[in-house]
Amino acid sequence: MRSIADTLAEMTLEEKAALCSGQDFWNTRPIDRLDVPALMLSDGPHGLRKQPDGPGADHAGLLASLPATCFPTAAGLASSWDTTLLTRLGEALGDEAQSENVSVVLGPGTNIKRSPLCGRNFEYFSEDPVLSSRLASAHIQGVQSKGVGASLKHFAANNQEHRRMSVDARIDERTLREIYLASFEEAVKVAKPWTVMCAYNRVNGPYCSEHSRLLTQILRKEWGFDGIVVSDWAAVNDRVAGLDAGLELEMPTSGDTRTRQIVKAVESGTLSEGVLDQAVERLLAFIERAHTQDRTNADVDLDEHHQLARHVARESMVLLKNDGVLPLSTNQHVAVIGEFAERPRFQGGGSSHVNPYRVETPLEALSATGHEVRYAKGFEIDRDDTDQALLDDAVARAKRADVAVLFLGLPERYESEGYDRTHLDIPANQRALIDAVHAVQPNTVVVLANGSPVAMPWLSKASAVLEAYLGGQAVGAAVADLLFGEVSPCGKLAETFPHRLEDTPCYLHFPGTGDVVEYAEGIFVGYRYFDAKNVAPLFPFGHGLSYTTFTYQDLTLSEARISADDTLDVTVRVTNSGQRAGKEIVQLYVSDHTHAVPVAPKALRGFEKVHLEPGESATLTFTLGRRDFAYFDVDTNDWRVPTGSFSISFGASSADLRLTQDVHVTGDAPRWPALDRNTLVGDLSGIEVAQRILHDALAPLAAQNPLLKGFAEDPIDDHSDDMIEAMMRYLPLRGLVSFTQGAFDEAQLERLLQRLEQSRSSDGA
Amino acid sequence: MRSIADTLAEMTLEEKAALCSGQDFWNTRPIDRLDVPALMLSDGPHGLRKQPDGPGADHAGLLASLPATCFPTAAGLASSWDTTLLTRLGEALGDEAQSENVSVVLGPGTNIKRSPLCGRNFEYFSEDPVLSSRLASAHIQGVQSKGVGASLKHFAANNQEHRRMSVDARIDERTLREIYLASFEEAVKVAKPWTVMCAYNRVNGPYCSEHSRLLTQILRKEWGFDGIVVSDWAAVNDRVAGLDAGLELEMPTSGDTRTRQIVKAVESGTLSEGVLDQAVERLLAFIERAHTQDRTNADVDLDEHHQLARHVARESMVLLKNDGVLPLSTNQHVAVIGEFAERPRFQGGGSSHVNPYRVETPLEALSATGHEVRYAKGFEIDRDDTDQALLDDAVARAKRADVAVLFLGLPERYESEGYDRTHLDIPANQRALIDAVHAVQPNTVVVLANGSPVAMPWLSKASAVLEAYLGGQAVGAAVADLLFGEVSPCGKLAETFPHRLEDTPCYLHFPGTGDVVEYAEGIFVGYRYFDAKNVAPLFPFGHGLSYTTFTYQDLTLSEARISADDTLDVTVRVTNSGQRAGKEIVQLYVSDHTHAVPVAPKALRGFEKVHLEPGESATLTFTLGRRDFAYFDVDTNDWRVPTGSFSISFGASSADLRLTQDVHVTGDAPRWPALDRNTLVGDLSGIEVAQRILHDALAPLAAQNPLLKGFAEDPIDDHSDDMIEAMMRYLPLRGLVSFTQGAFDEAQLERLLQRLEQSRSSDGA
Repeated sequence: MRSIADTLAEMTLEEKAALCSGQDFWNTRPIDRLDVPALMLSDGPHGLRKQPDGPGADHAGLLASLPATCFPTAAGLASSWDTTLLTRLGEALGDEAQSENVSVVLGPGTNIKRSPLCGRNFEYFSEDPVLSSRLASAHIQGVQSKGVGASLKHFAANNQEHRRMSVDARIDERTLREIYLASFEEAVKVAKPWTVMCAYNRVNGPYCSEHSRLLTQILRKEWGFDGIVVSDWAAVNDRVAGLDAGLELEMPTSGDTRTRQIVKAVESGTLSEGVLDQAVERLLAFIERAHTQDRTNADVDLDEHHQLARHVARESMVLLKNDGVLPLSTNQHVAVIGEFAERPRFQGGGSSHVNPYRVETPLEALSATGHEVRYAKGFEIDRDDTDQALLDDAVARAKRADVAVLFLGLPERYESEGYDRTHLDIPANQRALIDAVHAVQPNTVVVLANGSPVAMPWLSKASAVLEAYLGGQAVGAAVADLLFGEVSPCGKLAETFPHRLEDTPCYLHFPGTGDVVEYAEGIFVGYRYFDAKNVAPLFPFGHGLSYTTFTYQDLTLSEARISADDTLDVTVRVTNSGQRAGKEIVQLYVSDHTHAVPVAPKALRGFEKVHLEPGESATLTFTLGRRDFAYFDVDTNDWRVPTGSFSISFGASSADLRLTQDVHVTGDAPRWPALDRNTLVGDLSGIEVAQRILHDALAPLAAQNPLLKGFAEDPIDDHSDDMIEAMMRYLPLRGLVSFTQGAFDEAQLERLLQRLEQSRSSDGA
Repeated sequence: MRSIADTLAEMTLEEKAALCSGQDFWNTRPIDRLDVPALMLSDGPHGLRKQPDGPGADHAGLLASLPATCFPTAAGLASSWDTTLLTRLGEALGDEAQSENVSVVLGPGTNIKRSPLCGRNFEYFSEDPVLSSRLASAHIQGVQSKGVGASLKHFAANNQEHRRMSVDARIDERTLREIYLASFEEAVKVAKPWTVMCAYNRVNGPYCSEHSRLLTQILRKEWGFDGIVVSDWAAVNDRVAGLDAGLELEMPTSGDTRTRQIVKAVESGTLSEGVLDQAVERLLAFIERAHTQDRTNADVDLDEHHQLARHVARESMVLLKNDGVLPLSTNQHVAVIGEFAERPRFQGGGSSHVNPYRVETPLEALSATGHEVRYAKGFEIDRDDTDQALLDDAVARAKRADVAVLFLGLPERYESEGYDRTHLDIPANQRALIDAVHAVQPNTVVVLANGSPVAMPWLSKASAVLEAYLGGQAVGAAVADLLFGEVSPCGKLAETFPHRLEDTPCYLHFPGTGDVVEYAEGIFVGYRYFDAKNVAPLFPFGHGLSYTTFTYQDLTLSEARISADDTLDVTVRVTNSGQRAGKEIVQLYVSDHTHAVPVAPKALRGFEKVHLEPGESATLTFTLGRRDFAYFDVDTNDWRVPTGSFSISFGASSADLRLTQDVHVTGDAPRWPALDRNTLVGDLSGIEVAQRILHDALAPLAAQNPLLKGFAEDPIDDHSDDMIEAMMRYLPLRGLVSFTQGAFDEAQLERLLQRLEQSRSSDGA
């Protein structure tokens, strides 16, 4: 086989340009004379969507794809908080891709859930970047272990569907780094995805498809990305600008237009041929990597994958509420109500839409348990208004049963790729059903199918609520397993459920005005907002119940004081204090009390899911490092550890912290402020030598000017000290001239600045 | 007397440059040889602060000033909602200024109350720009009617004290125009202040003192300002840049430095002499205006002004709560408790600090009523911790009385010019006092002295709360008048009182990080935020109780449908339905239901205070115009009226709307979007001719591409229509090429754009 360098050397300009766009909707362009094969890319973050190619191929899940296993979507997967599980899922996706000769599976999507309204949230993991990025990392590692590439998407800040191809996400740098990019960063660094997919939208101006800062400066140079960047389908605005910025592959094809544009740009000198060569070299390396690992038509056991889908679904569902009615006991007569029981919504609409090879409905699965189960449809999914006959029948069924299990949720038309929701409600006919059933049956269990949070003004009428998310093709069996206690629920929310839409962090700024959306809430996304604003959520981030209970003990820190570059080992002992086996998701939060910059009350910095038999204990160890104490400092464009006290807490949820201990961190060395006429007097207060210089300069004037009395040899305390102190603290050095009416003159100011500058230089700053 | 043109012609470059800075702390520079006199400027938005000049002169209220009348500060004044009253106050200030040979009184301050924490809120009017600007206007008209100039300040967006001389207020253009500048705009246009004072801070980059867009483009060119801009004291960064930007006068002096800088800049050509001449011409005109109206040592009756201060204070206080305990009856034995009763806090700290010629304390005034009044100190203002002996004594007094009146509030160290608060609490010793008194005395009245809202977790323990704000030198008499029902309380809040700090609109973004403060809440300031987020305040904007009651009837609109440039007359009948005379503040709110841009649920557009005897009615008429229905459109940099439905409501507060009626407004003509490859398909949907062109272009491809089926001759409805419709709506025209894999090619796209452009041109757009 030819080396990449040789192939590149033999390629014509036209061939090179052509390789930078697809051949059709799903395949890269082959170069037969140089033995460069075409590669197929397919949708599929939670199941393969290999679509036969052709003029009607689409990115919207319209045309049926080949049968494949449909796993729970990312919203559910994330609730497992289980990186091992995500890797197993990735392996299964990789195997299915190999069996269908697909080289790249387009996923996972790790965009942050900025608003619960985003129509594509069901495809994303979390509102928290640590959780999101670690799960994405595990997913990618699974897929790629099978010789298939993953495509981490949508880079970056594609957090809404509304005007997604034109909107400019305006995000301050600290928020971008700490929240939105952080959700990609660890996955890129650790899992090394073969491809990253650029998003449709713009970020602070440029389209992501031509954003050199994102695609080259941050992704490649800072994070060390060594794969290729592929455009989201039709995300390209200016192909030449994109190539220059670091977008190697445009998908799908746009005919020969792009090839001509690239050739012309190189010929006219507006694009360096070196840039093109580098892109082509990366593309050839990518093609070679995929091609050499291709195992054409590998075998897959779809039945085994169905069982995996069932296992994954069980790990992903979240028991939100339980007054004791769950698990159901074997002698109970169960009324199963709601059309979702026979026609489950188990995946989302759009490009991720899988054609499942088999679907196990809740009704089938519950009936198969051998318990006494009676079904009533209750409502029609495709309508919002109540069908009185269906309702009456459901109420009658519920009345005669020992317990009613209501299968409710969001119809597909309520949430989908392509558009955002405008409210958090489930349809009116379902709300009416809860009211009516509750009136005759106190034991009412609600099982929810939805890709993102719903409001629950009806919560008091439900004895238990199981959040099944979009549970994949084995959703029915998984729900049955959990309801009847075959296994204990063990998922926890990867996102906050708000009481109402107005409580969500970006409510006033979503989805923006025209083509501008201001990320005005800044870093205060998800629980960071609810914590900071002290707003009670419906269910907090990290919340999830079990059929057993867990206790937390013996939080220990390896050190009471550390420095910025040290690591800190944190251990905790968790015990299953209940009567059943179960899994606990242990969450480690760090709180920054240094006041260096505004921070959220706490941030997730670690998590681990542990299986424990009744009475069993496990001691878990977490290692925290520099980044866990750092904020992104926009002045230096780098992470910075402040000095001061931090709390380390373990919680069973973000609102249920069980143990907390403090550590003192000696952060990065203090910095001199920028020195000029506008430097504030107060900004020099932390620097001893600067204080001495100021004092020398101002003491002679202190007797005559009350504002300067803090610099007098013998400062006198009096009533208005607070104000004087504040006035001096916030005074630019130039203000000394004005406030002394020139008694401290421009020449003295010059000398003061010179002395400060000299001291700073000798400080090595 | 020489003409301005002649004087200018005779001035040397040095003289011209010198005139642009002060001579000392308070005076402009005279030019004796040309008979140009010095003018004195003095602090004093609510009372003159004429300070003897000298080396220790200050802008911080440190050095005692000449005795003058201290009126309630702006926070209280605004609660009067009474423009006539503000004009009377302004007249009194003008008279006192004339009597002291002061040419300009530095005020009023009309900055918006963005956060209740701002240390200088006591000097500002409101969170609402309409209320704020109209009150400022009335104030200025009063002052200037006396031949004294006002100085409208601090222009602009000086909404915090934290780092006020360096912070950059980052405000989106629509918010700047609709909220922060709007608070100045009407006052500039209507009242034509002689001077406007530029703020210390920066706005979106430049310092206000060198902000040509603010000082020249908007203030002079758009609003027609014809006075001079004076710097806030020491606000100048670069004097030459400031002069170029529209800052005529720097205060205070900085010795000769500035003169040399300006001369050098003109000589070197970096500053056009024409710019300097224009500034000097304006300064000469200003000096002439002041000089010709000077009535040296005019007489003032300070006793009369004290009575005016008493009247103003009565109009300004707000009865927040009253379970019926107020008014006090003549036979009640009253325990007067709290050091504020004998040492009232009646003004704020900093540059506005007046040396009152007389102070009437609440204890004096209440004792003078002839009722049985016993006093206990209760706590020490200057301490936060409880003095048990004082507390015990107060409890004993309270127990023996029929009613306890507690004088509580914020000590001066809690709020002042120069720094911001960090919490909303009153001191712990005062909170302990309420608890202890309430335990023995169910009839507990709290009278508050504070310049900005406090939290009231103790509210349930108070039978009544009278918000006295900082009530000026006659505060005692005014409080006595209101408590005993000599007059009924008639103030209403000009700002929202929140339950807690976390509920305030900018809580997550105040006071910013380093020298950047993002106004992230945008237009959602004050009640706009509480309404939009559906957060219940402690007391809403516009709230205030009376000893009588009012009914609202007969809301009528002059038209049911109007066009953007029409006016709409709105009338309402208000009746005093109670047993006492009283005044009602009638509030007119407009709600925009057009969905053109995100808006607050309602906005104040009119108000009127009306005195009514028991049983008396008044019919009030308001006229609404273009601006009352408009939003600031950032695309055209102009106000734009959208088309659709608006509600007109009358309320007794922002949370107590009594009558509502809708009007349909035919707004400004629809606009074509910018036409290029990135124009969204959906953005052409409102334009019929564009729809026809799109249809012609795409119909031939619709059969082959499901995404285009909406353009087919015979569109078929099916299940995934919502998604397809959304995908097309948000699709840039360029995306047609990608999604058809080039079947719709670049040449066709070009032709489509040409046809659209032709139609747009022939549309006259």
